[in-house]
Amino acid sequence: MRVLVLGGDGFCGWPTSLYLSDRGHDVTILDNLSRRNIDNELEVQSLTPIRPMGERIRVWREVTGREIGFENLDLATEYDRLADYLAELRPDAIVHFAEQRAAPYSMRSVRAKRYTVDNNVRATHNLLVALVATGSSAALVHLGTMGVYGYGWSGSAPIPEGYLTVKVPTPDGEIERQILHPANPGSVYHMTKTLDQLMFAFYAKNDGLRITDLHQGIVWGTQTGQTARDERLINRFDYDGDYGTVLNRFLMQAAIGHPLTVHGSGGQTRAFIHIRDSVRCIEIALENPPESGSQPMVLNQITETHRVADLAKMVSEIMGAEIANLPNPRQEADENELKVLNDQFLALGLRPTTLSEGLLEEGVEIAQRYRHRADLTKIVARSVWRAGMQTSEDLLTKLPELPEEH
Amino acid sequence: MRVLVLGGDGFCGWPTSLYLSDRGHDVTILDNLSRRNIDNELEVQSLTPIRPMGERIRVWREVTGREIGFENLDLATEYDRLADYLAELRPDAIVHFAEQRAAPYSMRSVRAKRYTVDNNVRATHNLLVALVATGSSAALVHLGTMGVYGYGWSGSAPIPEGYLTVKVPTPDGEIERQILHPANPGSVYHMTKTLDQLMFAFYAKNDGLRITDLHQGIVWGTQTGQTARDERLINRFDYDGDYGTVLNRFLMQAAIGHPLTVHGSGGQTRAFIHIRDSVRCIEIALENPPESGSQPMVLNQITETHRVADLAKMVSEIMGAEIANLPNPRQEADENELKVLNDQFLALGLRPTTLSEGLLEEGVEIAQRYRHRADLTKIVARSVWRAGMQTSEDLLTKLPELPEEH
Repeated sequence: MRVLVLGGDGFCGWPTSLYLSDRGHDVTILDNLSRRNIDNELEVQSLTPIRPMGERIRVWREVTGREIGFENLDLATEYDRLADYLAELRPDAIVHFAEQRAAPYSMRSVRAKRYTVDNNVRATHNLLVALVATGSSAALVHLGTMGVYGYGWSGSAPIPEGYLTVKVPTPDGEIERQILHPANPGSVYHMTKTLDQLMFAFYAKNDGLRITDLHQGIVWGTQTGQTARDERLINRFDYDGDYGTVLNRFLMQAAIGHPLTVHGSGGQTRAFIHIRDSVRCIEIALENPPESGSQPMVLNQITETHRVADLAKMVSEIMGAEIANLPNPRQEADENELKVLNDQFLALGLRPTTLSEGLLEEGVEIAQRYRHRADLTKIVARSVWRAGMQTSEDLLTKLPELPEEH
Repeated sequence: MRVLVLGGDGFCGWPTSLYLSDRGHDVTILDNLSRRNIDNELEVQSLTPIRPMGERIRVWREVTGREIGFENLDLATEYDRLADYLAELRPDAIVHFAEQRAAPYSMRSVRAKRYTVDNNVRATHNLLVALVATGSSAALVHLGTMGVYGYGWSGSAPIPEGYLTVKVPTPDGEIERQILHPANPGSVYHMTKTLDQLMFAFYAKNDGLRITDLHQGIVWGTQTGQTARDERLINRFDYDGDYGTVLNRFLMQAAIGHPLTVHGSGGQTRAFIHIRDSVRCIEIALENPPESGSQPMVLNQITETHRVADLAKMVSEIMGAEIANLPNPRQEADENELKVLNDQFLALGLRPTTLSEGLLEEGVEIAQRYRHRADLTKIVARSVWRAGMQTSEDLLTKLPELPEEH
C-alpha cells in the first residue's frame, strides 16, 4: 500500500512509519516538526536523542534499503499543498497522527489551549475536505483517545467501542438507538478528539469517506523492532510533566533515583498499550477499513488497564524507588474504575504485549543510558487545569548517584 | 446590563442589538463585517439596503438618544484584542452570533467549508478561553441551531431541549443517563454548532462558565419595532440561494412574480420563529442564565413547525404565485416529521408570534418596495452537498411586471 503518515515524526508516528515501511508499504511522512518545536518552547528534550528527520530517513535507507518520503507541511495552515500531495501521491491509506497530543500542554496557557484547538481541528478538517476535493478513496486511520469517553459514565458496563445502544423513551414505548458514546473529555486536548469524532461522522455520511478512529490508551515503552535497529533511529522518550506519560515517567524516575510522582491518591485507573502493539494495531486498522457509506469504524486501541497507584507500587518494588504523592493538577475524580472492550483488535489478530518485568527493564535501561540528558526541573507536572491550583516544588535539584543494582 | 453583542451586524445580531439597547441595556457590538464581505464574494446584496455600521449607529442615536458601541474585530484571529475588550468592558452578558450561519454557503466550495469551520470553531473557542483568562463571570448566550438534532431520530418523541434521558444497559441492569442529544448535523455549518456544544460542555465543567445555547429554528420576518423606526435602521432581507431562508424567499419570490422554489418534494418539516420573537428570546435568556457550575442551559428557540410544501402552498394561495419543484441540492430525507419542545421559553414568558397573513404581508411589502434591487441570477440555490448533484437553470431572466394586487 502507498501510505501517508501525517505526523510521522512523533512518538507514535515515527515507529509506525518504520513498521509500515518494514512491512513493505510505500511510506511518505508529512510533518511540520511541531513536536520538536514544542520541545524548544518547553525547553526540554526527549530523554533519548532524536536525530534530524533527514538523518533518520537516511539511516533507515542505509539499514534496510527502504525509502521513506518526507515533506515538511503544516496541515492546519497549508491546505493547498496538502491537496496537491493527495492528488499527486494518490495514497491507498492515510494515518493521521498530526495533532497536539498532550493533555497537560493543552491546559497550560491561553496560547496552548488555542493552539491545540486551532491546530487539531483545522488539521483534521483540512484533511477531510482535501480527501473530498481530490476524490480520494483512501482509507483514513485516525489516532483518537480513550479520553473521549471519560471515566465512570456507564456504571458497571465496560466502555464499548465507540458506539453504544441505548433506549430512548417515546409516546409509543421505548426505541433502541445506536449512538456515538457521549463525549466526556477531561482536557482541551481530549475535547479536540471529541470534535474530530463529529467531523468524521459528518464526512463519512455526506461524502462516503472511509474512516477508522482508534481510541488509544496511554502508550508505554519506547522502542519497536525497527527503531531499535540503529541508535540514530531511536524513538522519543518524554519524561517531562507535559508530554511524559505515566508509566514511562515512573520508569525514568526510578532509573535516575527520583521519587515516583503520583498525583492525588493515584486511584485513577487508566488504559495502556505498548508502543509495539500500537504500531501493529495501525497496520490491522489499515488492512480492515470500513466500506464507503459506513459510519466511522471505532476501535479501542488498548490492551490492559491499571490503577496509577498500583503501577507506582509495582515500579517501586522492582526498582526500589520512593513514591511521592503530589497535588493533582487535573480536575478529575480521585478514584475511578475502568473496564474497556477491545474485542475488535483481538478478533483481528492482535496478540497483546502486556506489562511484564522484561519490558519494564527495557524502559529502565534506556532511561539509565540517557539519564545524563534529564533536566530535573522538568519532571514535576505544573500545567494546571484551573488557575490557582497547587503544584509541587521540584523534588530533586541534582541528579543522584545511580541507584544500586537490583 | 452591559451587553456585548458579537456578530451584531448580521440578520439576527443587528435587531437584537437595537432591541437590547431600546430596553435600556448598554450595548457594544463586536463584528468584523464578514456578512457584508460575503455579500461581496457572492456578488449579491440584501434586498433591503443596509447602511454602513457608522451610519446605523448614528441614526439609532438620533432616533433614540441611545449609544451603541462598535468595534471591528475578528474573533477568530484577533484573540488579544478580544481579551482586551473583555477586560476593559467587563460585560455582564455576551450574545454570540459571530459565526458563518448559512448551510448552503458552508457546502459550496473548499474555501467556504474551511472558512466555516476555521471561523466558527476558533471564534467560539477564543471567546471561551478569553472569558476564562479574564476571570469573567459574564453570562454567555450563544445562537445554536435546531440543525444539531437532525430529523427523525427520536421516533414519535418530540425533540427535547438539548438533553435526553436514555437507558444504558449494564451487567447490573439498566441505568438512566442524561445525555446531550446525539448530534446529527446536515451540513458543515450545522456541524460547527455541534462542535460548539462540546466546547461549551467542557468549559462549563472545567471553568464554571455560564453558558446558554439557543437552538434556533429558521427565522422569518424582517423588521422589529426598533429596525422599523427609520429606513436607515432596516434589517437584512436575504433572498439568494445561499443566505436566503425558506419562508422569506417564498415571500420575496411571490412579491416579484418569481415561482416559489421548492427543492425536492418539499416534504421536509422545519421549525420557525419570527425575528421579533428571536430578539425577545435573547433577552429572556440573558435574564435567566445558569449558575456557574451548571451544564450549559439549552433552549429550543422556535415557535412552530411547518412542512415546506405547505408553506409554499399557503404563500401561493395568498399571493397567486406558481410553485416550481427543483432538484434538492441537499442530502436529506425527502420527507420528515418534526415535533419540538419549547416549554422553557414559554414558561419564561415568550408569547409566540405565529405565522399569520398580517405578518406575511409585511414581508411582501418590503419585498415589493425593494424588488428593483433583486438579482434574478441569485435566486436558484446552486450550492450542492456533493459534487455533481443536479441544480436548476435560472427560472426568470428579467423582472416581470408587478403581479396584480390581491
